[in-house]
Amino acid sequence: MPRSQLPSSVTVREVGPRDGLQSERPVEPARRAALVDQLAAAGCRWIEAVSFVSPRAVPAMAGAAEVLGAITARDRIRVAALVPNLQGAESALAAGVDEITVTIAASATYNERNVRRSIPDTLAEIERICRLSAPAGVPVDAVVSCAFGSPYEGDIEPREVSELCDRLSGAGVAALTLADTTGMATPRVLDGVLSHTGVGVGLHLHETRGTGLLNAYAALQTGVTRFDTSVGGLGGSPFADGAAGNLSTESLVALLDDLGISTGIDLEALIEVTALVEELVGHGVPSPIALSGPRTRRTTPTVS
Amino acid sequence: MPRSQLPSSVTVREVGPRDGLQSERPVEPARRAALVDQLAAAGCRWIEAVSFVSPRAVPAMAGAAEVLGAITARDRIRVAALVPNLQGAESALAAGVDEITVTIAASATYNERNVRRSIPDTLAEIERICRLSAPAGVPVDAVVSCAFGSPYEGDIEPREVSELCDRLSGAGVAALTLADTTGMATPRVLDGVLSHTGVGVGLHLHETRGTGLLNAYAALQTGVTRFDTSVGGLGGSPFADGAAGNLSTESLVALLDDLGISTGIDLEALIEVTALVEELVGHGVPSPIALSGPRTRRTTPTVS
Repeated sequence: MPRSQLPSSVTVREVGPRDGLQSERPVEPARRAALVDQLAAAGCRWIEAVSFVSPRAVPAMAGAAEVLGAITARDRIRVAALVPNLQGAESALAAGVDEITVTIAASATYNERNVRRSIPDTLAEIERICRLSAPAGVPVDAVVSCAFGSPYEGDIEPREVSELCDRLSGAGVAALTLADTTGMATPRVLDGVLSHTGVGVGLHLHETRGTGLLNAYAALQTGVTRFDTSVGGLGGSPFADGAAGNLSTESLVALLDDLGISTGIDLEALIEVTALVEELVGHGVPSPIALSGPRTRRTTPTVS
Repeated sequence: MPRSQLPSSVTVREVGPRDGLQSERPVEPARRAALVDQLAAAGCRWIEAVSFVSPRAVPAMAGAAEVLGAITARDRIRVAALVPNLQGAESALAAGVDEITVTIAASATYNERNVRRSIPDTLAEIERICRLSAPAGVPVDAVVSCAFGSPYEGDIEPREVSELCDRLSGAGVAALTLADTTGMATPRVLDGVLSHTGVGVGLHLHETRGTGLLNAYAALQTGVTRFDTSVGGLGGSPFADGAAGNLSTESLVALLDDLGISTGIDLEALIEVTALVEELVGHGVPSPIALSGPRTRRTTPTVS
């Protein structure tokens, strides 16, 4: 096993406050800001904290500027905000975010359902967003949904994905993140897509088929060093049938800790944050590490 | 990624009717036999079907001989039976099983709790079982619990695990299976243990920390070609705190299918069996593939 070739550090973008909470019952901005602060205290340094979307479309994301204003760890973290259009980007820039994330799908049907636009129209809007954010020095990361397959069209040709990536770079995006929106990635599929796009992309993995951690490991072996993850494994698009939670931050950090790969995140502190998340959303989180703890956790034998 | 070095086929021992059902409310023998038949129809050729234990200790495993007698696919499958002691082995041989499985732990505390014997006493009993089964031509497979760590003692030295394996071989066992009883295996830990034991062992993985599929993949890359899995991901020892379900057969088969590695098992047929399992146990199964299907499953876009 080529463990010797694994990277010495990995960058984690925590997306729980955005992707994790967006499908939950709304949580008030002050409590969402407190979650961001807790994540920062656990060592998360890059957090997708909010989304500047219509509160009618996604009620749980209402009050983005308020959330950002209430974060006390603001100077210690890089704050990303998802925007669906130019108007959202204007609000995000006005609120002083460090990074803008936009989404576009490699699947035409999914793109239509998710942002109600064609892929070319979405590309044009992303180009406008990049032109707006460039003078402010705020980079745009394009998250490519369904990069490893679509529940509608099935397999997406790796060449199609890399051509979309090229067009996004041409439009001015500074970074690219490939999303496995409905859990269709496998080590084989990752291999195919990454051989076309290169391994400088980030990965945003979902657990629809329980393959998030497997795929992260396979991607690590291929050379990927940037991952989106969600505290507690919360998440899932409200617009995709069969989507499920994100790869949990604690699962990835537990694996990386064990492999000696640094992330700057304290696993035990992060697990404590999952308890806060459960309070916020009013139900348990799907992450098994949140329940069972890291492998170093001991049981005291009971007399039986 | 060294996908080119992966094996062309993998052997799966389905343990759902035993490990999967043992902690559930009791299911009558005829229905457990029907489950075995359904698994055989889906292509499972090696099934741990029963356990010859005290029905007082494990009520869900009562009626093992009855289960075996009611299996109609008996001549098409290799039937394994778990036995806790010589008396169980006598019953298993009388019932005409093809393989006997025994368990012993690499953790002294876990062994004491699981079989209420010391490790040396368990080894001596396994030697007696091997002497009894040898004349009948029935091989004994020793499943080594906590081979990748114990919730009581923590890390177990790989050398200790391989020495226990050597003693088991000396006692007459024909095969060895290393069990990750409480989900403490990682690619690093697997690497360490397998470099001492060799890769001719089977692996029996649990999902306590959501690492079953990751570990199966890492072990495949190292050269392991035999896995215990449970339909629907049911399972978990009633005697180990924090144990959780087994790696699900459908998760492993979905991964292997995608990698072009044959198992003889039909994934769609197997997913249909998970519906039967849910009826038998009266609740949903934890396997995400049972819920979401293989990656090739399509969604028809609804008008929205």
